Amino acid sequence: MRRISLLGATGSIGIQTLDVIREHRSEFELVTMSVGKNIEKARQLVSEFKPKILSVQEKEDAEILKSEFPGVKVLFGQEGLVEVACHQEVDVVVNAVLGSVGLYPTLQAIESGKTIAIANKETLVTAGHLVMKAAKEKGVALLPVDSEHSAIFQSLQGESPKNIEKMIITASGGSFRDRTREDLKGVTVKEALNHPNWSMGAKITIDSATMMNKGLEVIEAHWLFNIPYDDIEVLLHRESIIHSMVQFHDSSVIAQLGTPDMRVPIQYALTYPDRLPRNNSSRLNLAEISKLHFEKMDYERFRLLKLAFDAGRIGGSVTTVLNASNEAAVAAFLSGEISFLQIEDFVERALERHQVIQEPDLGTIQEIDQETREFVRSLY
Amino acid sequence: MRRISLLGATGSIGIQTLDVIREHRSEFELVTMSVGKNIEKARQLVSEFKPKILSVQEKEDAEILKSEFPGVKVLFGQEGLVEVACHQEVDVVVNAVLGSVGLYPTLQAIESGKTIAIANKETLVTAGHLVMKAAKEKGVALLPVDSEHSAIFQSLQGESPKNIEKMIITASGGSFRDRTREDLKGVTVKEALNHPNWSMGAKITIDSATMMNKGLEVIEAHWLFNIPYDDIEVLLHRESIIHSMVQFHDSSVIAQLGTPDMRVPIQYALTYPDRLPRNNSSRLNLAEISKLHFEKMDYERFRLLKLAFDAGRIGGSVTTVLNASNEAAVAAFLSGEISFLQIEDFVERALERHQVIQEPDLGTIQEIDQETREFVRSLY
Repeated sequence: MRRISLLGATGSIGIQTLDVIREHRSEFELVTMSVGKNIEKARQLVSEFKPKILSVQEKEDAEILKSEFPGVKVLFGQEGLVEVACHQEVDVVVNAVLGSVGLYPTLQAIESGKTIAIANKETLVTAGHLVMKAAKEKGVALLPVDSEHSAIFQSLQGESPKNIEKMIITASGGSFRDRTREDLKGVTVKEALNHPNWSMGAKITIDSATMMNKGLEVIEAHWLFNIPYDDIEVLLHRESIIHSMVQFHDSSVIAQLGTPDMRVPIQYALTYPDRLPRNNSSRLNLAEISKLHFEKMDYERFRLLKLAFDAGRIGGSVTTVLNASNEAAVAAFLSGEISFLQIEDFVERALERHQVIQEPDLGTIQEIDQETREFVRSLY
Repeated sequence: MRRISLLGATGSIGIQTLDVIREHRSEFELVTMSVGKNIEKARQLVSEFKPKILSVQEKEDAEILKSEFPGVKVLFGQEGLVEVACHQEVDVVVNAVLGSVGLYPTLQAIESGKTIAIANKETLVTAGHLVMKAAKEKGVALLPVDSEHSAIFQSLQGESPKNIEKMIITASGGSFRDRTREDLKGVTVKEALNHPNWSMGAKITIDSATMMNKGLEVIEAHWLFNIPYDDIEVLLHRESIIHSMVQFHDSSVIAQLGTPDMRVPIQYALTYPDRLPRNNSSRLNLAEISKLHFEKMDYERFRLLKLAFDAGRIGGSVTTVLNASNEAAVAAFLSGEISFLQIEDFVERALERHQVIQEPDLGTIQEIDQETREFVRSLY
């Protein structure tokens, strides 16, 4: 029995994590959970899973739910998130919140010795050095949930890190992969949200279309697997069947494949190093798929990926700026305030004006994060 | 330093094993070796590698070489093979001989506690139950050298056998993959020897064209990985880039990939569980390859594969008959005495007349092997 804390229960990863828990009731127990503002969904989940603690974003929502569920401890805000993550009965914290809000509770959960299943890539992008250092000091495992990182992690089982030559992260290309830069000028939010392979939240779907999602994954891979940026390659693979690969120094490549289904990597993180059956996931049928396609990544076409590699190589506070400016710009695009290509422009402008600080502490990261968002908002 | 005994040094696998040893002189030492009748090549290899024992097929050749290399113990025949395999300074025996002649020395080497790197699939096809039982009793590791089995073995590292759902063995389709059965009627030996992806010996290249090679691999996989025939699938994959795969019960698939190069799986067997660099093997470039193709296997088109599955399922002495009849028929085809499609016919006729003996002992296997070859020779 693994006892789970789920941060971000009503997001795409959260919902699929609950699917996995439902499918294996005797293996998993949801001890604590957090949601944002989706209170109606929170009511359903509390009734179904009966967690010991529920945390919500807003105080007012907490007050309402408290009276409705007298048997449940209802909290709110960052303090609530931390209590949810650090509850003494919890073994694994699934960090599936959106954006950099996942950082502080993750650090606290590591402090408390919890295993972290990490779906929130911004946590590692903004503060990889702090998170990895804390995890190492506490001897805590960081298990990837992202399909690409899970693929790499699965490919590394039984292998020695010293033998790794290269990691190859595959990219579907997102909703606009067949468009030129010229074609991107007038694209709408609705078009951008139409991902060809994966059903995901809005922010990550936009990040897929700009290829920033792959950039964040590159930085996440750098931290999770302690791999230099020069040894990470991004490969266009439109079918999203090979989820990623590891090349070893004997030229052998190990890959993890499957029909796109986020419940598979989520479940792997929860069962690692073992596996449990998945009766509700369809099996890969390569004969039916017939062809897999691969293409060299075009860094001119996908400028944000290039910027992400550059930011990662410089390191320090630069990746915080990359992430915060992107979050702010994507939010502005989703609310219809800026155009698709302005996302890139705003990120680039935020990076250009920033003076790098190496090894920033948590306070500095949070300041830079806020200041960058304000700068982006000042641009439109 | 691993001390190696190489059975079959002048065959395709033998030559490539010596390449690997050459590339890592400080890691490997060739202690003993055997060759068949290629005495000229044997001379070169003895001069270069200075083994303690050389065994050849014929007594006369042994006499000649003995006088030429007074510092080397020169032996011949089956006794010579056994002494080469069981030499006390040997850690790993690479069984790369052709045909069922590899069986007895392999059993003897297992008795002596040697690790076996097995490239000779007939050993497991004709006597898998004896070999696996002996290996288990002696606690000896059987490491696959075939690219497909090495791929499965690599994909299984860090995984628990109980979680395996299926093994997917890929097949290039051989030199006649794009021909119909009608087209096969008049094919020549030269055409059959022109394999599209792999450079291998004549016998295995013909076996690839008939798909018997894949049938032998299915039976070998059954024994090596203790997997039921119902859980083995053969998938046509013309590029031979994905060398084989394992599907786990959570629907996740792990695969091993690479540019076709037998030195990679050979070296893995010699370095397992570690890996050593391979500077002389080209790296996989999927963007350049651009497309990978997959097709359902056609068991009508490739009748020998169907016969191999059937033979494996019945088990006992039937796989000995399958292998012996195929060896005799392929030899007859290579010497121009029968047509390509007669290989299938002769194997089928040998199987039809055989009364299965379950759990045959070594003597029975050898008798059935001889008797089957004689039967096939009586057909033309």
